[in-house]
Amino acid sequence: MSPEIRARYRFAAASDEDPEARARQIAREQTLEAVVGIVSAEVEARAEGRLDALAATASGRFEAWIAYPFEAASGELPQLLNLLYGNVSLWPDVRLEEVQWPRELLERLPGPAFGARGLRALCGAGTGRPLVAAVLKPLGLGARELARQASDCALGGLDLVKDDHSLADQAWAPFRERVHLVASEVARANRHSGHATLYAPNLSGPVDRFGERLEVLAEAGCRAALVAPMVLGLDAVRSLAASSGVALIAHPSFAGAYLGADRGIAPELLFGELFRMAGADAVISAIPGGRFPVGEREVEEIARRLASPLGGLEPAMLSLGGGIDAARLASLVGSHGPETLYLAGSGLLARPDVRRAAAELAELVRRLRPRHS
Amino acid sequence: MSPEIRARYRFAAASDEDPEARARQIAREQTLEAVVGIVSAEVEARAEGRLDALAATASGRFEAWIAYPFEAASGELPQLLNLLYGNVSLWPDVRLEEVQWPRELLERLPGPAFGARGLRALCGAGTGRPLVAAVLKPLGLGARELARQASDCALGGLDLVKDDHSLADQAWAPFRERVHLVASEVARANRHSGHATLYAPNLSGPVDRFGERLEVLAEAGCRAALVAPMVLGLDAVRSLAASSGVALIAHPSFAGAYLGADRGIAPELLFGELFRMAGADAVISAIPGGRFPVGEREVEEIARRLASPLGGLEPAMLSLGGGIDAARLASLVGSHGPETLYLAGSGLLARPDVRRAAAELAELVRRLRPRHS
Repeated sequence: MSPEIRARYRFAAASDEDPEARARQIAREQTLEAVVGIVSAEVEARAEGRLDALAATASGRFEAWIAYPFEAASGELPQLLNLLYGNVSLWPDVRLEEVQWPRELLERLPGPAFGARGLRALCGAGTGRPLVAAVLKPLGLGARELARQASDCALGGLDLVKDDHSLADQAWAPFRERVHLVASEVARANRHSGHATLYAPNLSGPVDRFGERLEVLAEAGCRAALVAPMVLGLDAVRSLAASSGVALIAHPSFAGAYLGADRGIAPELLFGELFRMAGADAVISAIPGGRFPVGEREVEEIARRLASPLGGLEPAMLSLGGGIDAARLASLVGSHGPETLYLAGSGLLARPDVRRAAAELAELVRRLRPRHS
Repeated sequence: MSPEIRARYRFAAASDEDPEARARQIAREQTLEAVVGIVSAEVEARAEGRLDALAATASGRFEAWIAYPFEAASGELPQLLNLLYGNVSLWPDVRLEEVQWPRELLERLPGPAFGARGLRALCGAGTGRPLVAAVLKPLGLGARELARQASDCALGGLDLVKDDHSLADQAWAPFRERVHLVASEVARANRHSGHATLYAPNLSGPVDRFGERLEVLAEAGCRAALVAPMVLGLDAVRSLAASSGVALIAHPSFAGAYLGADRGIAPELLFGELFRMAGADAVISAIPGGRFPVGEREVEEIARRLASPLGGLEPAMLSLGGGIDAARLASLVGSHGPETLYLAGSGLLARPDVRRAAAELAELVRRLRPRHS
């Protein structure tokens, strides 16, 4: 029998609605989307989503497992997104919460080209400890000043420096100039320090200029980049993972609209599985208790999905950011497991001696022994 | 003075929160995203979003106009999305509602390659009347049967036939086979009928195979395609509009999560402006009173934005679908203005004589005189 893609949805049904009819409506909407009887029973049977299980979870709330034929996804990421959450995204009470992926589908979506291990190797970092990165910012600063920040952080021995996700190709620090200047300062610092600090420029698109921008990365010797999958399109990230040759750190910009309580996609599925299947080697989440409303359990679940066996896909690394100052980071480091990349925010850059502050953070993580793996 | 991009946000503030501080937080989050004092006042002044106006709209609800420096958007669509709604998408109470676009930005995003006029011309349709299309479906049907549907609809004289948005490259009707078969049946029907029914295959990605799939369209003589901007990425659509040579009909699949009452992007901004700026020649909305919760005013507002002057951009056409059967369509046609493309759903294909039913619809729109323009 052909494999199926099983998806769990949560939805609402009013007291005068038949929840089973509602669940079947989801299954039909996402596949045939047609009145009954326009095609043979055979065609309906082979292509229609099948209601597999239905349960009430709370007053007026239901969970349905719907099984889609493997072939309906066409083995392609855009059609997979359309199949799982295309038209039903227009219903305000339908939330996609979990998917069971058949191996055949995961073979078509090979995921991270580097993975957590590969990213760690690119930084020259030993195993069993988290990584620490600095974010070059803000928007408006010139390339020379950003390069100076990068140099200080690399001399301090941080594992990575990355562009802020708002650095695109603005006249203040144009992409080519910035990438070359920062990369050369990081390389110079690495020669001096003996570290292998990795620089990840922001690959902000446009999607039809990726080729040209990847050439700049290659010229500058950059082996990693920041991408925002929901800004660029998840499939654009998959395409980069398949052919760019650089490790991809995925930023949650523009993704928040999917994180509704009653609609959207469960964060552990979106960030922990779909981003990984699209090829993110690291996935940034906001830190619990920071500027964004993210729960500790949510982050743990994302981390678990990024690391769990998933076909032949490499595990990806959790990255935590969003307003972590150097003091907070010092208290956090080590509390989310060794496969975590902590992003020091602008607080690090505000320290009077950035190089020394970076060195303290770098020292801190290198001293850590694994708590759990 | 450099032009600005002014954006209006609605947000919530608790009684113990200072709404002005909250509004300034949005402006800073979307630009500098950094603690105060890490860069000079000059850098802050040139790059930071500026709170321009603030008003209370309801209990605990506020509207803020924030002015971003033109340069912050980098003249690129992905960074524009990130600037307008990147990080703040992670706050569940911030909704982007309106944007005032400087001419300099619209010059960088030239929008529809064909526009409503060009799409109408491709169908050989006269002005002053709406267009009517059929949707080839469902998923699971073979290419030969889909081609037969297309032939019936073309012989009936419909303006367009388009693939259902779930037809990708499934084994049931592989992309190349389907496009060639349907296109050749439509061409044959056009020779017979004297009409110029346009066939729009679904360009479902993958984004790194667009080149190959556009070659299939060119071989088959197709001048239009269906795209789902939120599945493919808005910038992928912009790239297609810039270089594909085919008119683009934009489907709202996967976009619904942005349509929250308290978060997301106002539908008239997302569908009426951003889709148009990305190059959609027609934009599909669900019909009010159909399967999806869409209001009549919402659709009118989308239509108004698609048609309004916007820099030098061509107006785009509103397309209405989502469960319109032939009888309903007959009663609807003409009620949304002449620049509307009605999509007849599977109800048309369920009629005993599809060709005759299509001919009745085609006749209906050709008899219409403009009510408003």
